[in-house]
Amino acid sequence: MGEFELIRHYFAAAPCAQGGEGVALGIGDDCALLDLPAAQQLAVSTDTLVAGVHFPAVCDPSLLGQRSLAVAASDLAAMGATPIGFTLALTLPEVSAQWLQAYAEGLNRMARRCGLSLIGGDTTRGPLSITMTVFGRVARGQALLRSGAQVGDLLCVGGELGNAAGALPLVLGERQVEADLAGPLLAHYWSPSPQFALGQALLGKATAALDISDGLLADCGHIAKASRRALEVNLAQVPVSPALQGFLGSEAARQAALIGGDDYVLAFTLPPAQLSSLRAAGVPVHVVGRVLDGEGVRLLDEQGQDITPQQRGYQHFRETP
Amino acid sequence: MGEFELIRHYFAAAPCAQGGEGVALGIGDDCALLDLPAAQQLAVSTDTLVAGVHFPAVCDPSLLGQRSLAVAASDLAAMGATPIGFTLALTLPEVSAQWLQAYAEGLNRMARRCGLSLIGGDTTRGPLSITMTVFGRVARGQALLRSGAQVGDLLCVGGELGNAAGALPLVLGERQVEADLAGPLLAHYWSPSPQFALGQALLGKATAALDISDGLLADCGHIAKASRRALEVNLAQVPVSPALQGFLGSEAARQAALIGGDDYVLAFTLPPAQLSSLRAAGVPVHVVGRVLDGEGVRLLDEQGQDITPQQRGYQHFRETP
Repeated sequence: MGEFELIRHYFAAAPCAQGGEGVALGIGDDCALLDLPAAQQLAVSTDTLVAGVHFPAVCDPSLLGQRSLAVAASDLAAMGATPIGFTLALTLPEVSAQWLQAYAEGLNRMARRCGLSLIGGDTTRGPLSITMTVFGRVARGQALLRSGAQVGDLLCVGGELGNAAGALPLVLGERQVEADLAGPLLAHYWSPSPQFALGQALLGKATAALDISDGLLADCGHIAKASRRALEVNLAQVPVSPALQGFLGSEAARQAALIGGDDYVLAFTLPPAQLSSLRAAGVPVHVVGRVLDGEGVRLLDEQGQDITPQQRGYQHFRETP
Repeated sequence: MGEFELIRHYFAAAPCAQGGEGVALGIGDDCALLDLPAAQQLAVSTDTLVAGVHFPAVCDPSLLGQRSLAVAASDLAAMGATPIGFTLALTLPEVSAQWLQAYAEGLNRMARRCGLSLIGGDTTRGPLSITMTVFGRVARGQALLRSGAQVGDLLCVGGELGNAAGALPLVLGERQVEADLAGPLLAHYWSPSPQFALGQALLGKATAALDISDGLLADCGHIAKASRRALEVNLAQVPVSPALQGFLGSEAARQAALIGGDDYVLAFTLPPAQLSSLRAAGVPVHVVGRVLDGEGVRLLDEQGQDITPQQRGYQHFRETP
């Protein structure tokens, strides 16, 4: 098998490339063709992961396969979209059947879990890099935007925060701990779960939403700016996992939850009247603050003191040179 | 301005990012949103260009901006699709305002020419690489596929071939010639013209189509395989530009036209009855062969002798190490 046949073998023949609902034509022609039901819009997002910047250059390709798709798919969840498919642009320094097989396995696993079909892509030779473009559908005018937060809304998140950032020393092999502590953290890093069900449950209810990739405070800043409102976060309400507290201690765990990135949990604003029906339906909603007049993000401690940190951004994993 | 503001400044504020027909929500949220008219399908294609593999690492960023979009957009033309928009995933080793400004200028120029809106993307740090995903629309069931060629059809191309491959020694600075020879060849390399009008004129008429990126013979092989037919190419009918003949001589110019890549001219198969009406409408149709029973691609010389070369693929530009 030549180089290109090898790549086609692992991707075009993958279960996730067999087409699904909405995919009229998949891999193999100049373009893929998608069908969109009447009164629906197509949601599109693109994400690039670069070796040594967004993930360690040496890592398990099967885990990378999972993670690379989940990270991109999470943007669909944040809009409340129903997944359709994705394209994969894969740049590889060399063609290794072993690497490709493992990568495709992980990719397939996540594609099945998300309900996404591989519809096309490109494979090129160069420094290891992965660009995914993901497609979903959402009823016209109903997508969850960042810009609709209203004064009086609750600020909420869809789950525990900080696990992925806390896992970084484990991912990089800088620390080793018992498997029962390491396992849940590493799973959050390598296999994020795009919150599709949550996003869809929020349609027509939440006023703004996004997925947390840059850290809670930084991403709340994006909602605040797009909505022209201020967001207030109560530190005591931010959910942190027992595993993260056990691994980092309470103080560092909180820091990871506030400024650590890569969580891919949804953050959203919700009129208080919506809270009880969502909770009754079993939707995971953790209230962590509220929307106010003004601008920017404020962090309050348990006594209501403003303890907003200076540091606002989050540097995703970057290999030390 | 910080690094990310700089990038947003050049792309989100670009004229091509101001939204167009079919773009319900552009840059700035988790996803872009596209509207699709009833009874239309969305055509999607992804292409990656890597520095040192698909273009010289040191080159005019404005020309690269043009070329990177045109190469991807050509896949829409090959399906007969009407352009809507594109996403840009740009990986840069460093942020240079001068580079970004020039790149965005070239990108904008080509986006305007193609009628494509920038709807989203991602900017990351790493070795220079560009992934474009392009979107168009086409009436349901009407897209030009590779798989419909019929015995008796004419094999046609939409213009002169070999110019881009012939330009490579000029692109790489290995040769220098007078401007009147170099100009047209360099223009073909740096600013390919996706044949949208041709693709749309072929809807309902051509039985198969693609854009020539790997070379005429290799790409005819793709049509032959997808259609389960044989394709015959008559060397004497392959159109070659005077500029290319003047630069390379007749023999090498023919070689470039047959096996050189990067032309982004359409190749298509056409029932003979369609030929006169297309020509009467001013559509560029050059008959270069025909479709037969069988498989594979045969090349015939002026005497009808089979002179099919062994070499089948085309290595896109690759920098010598």
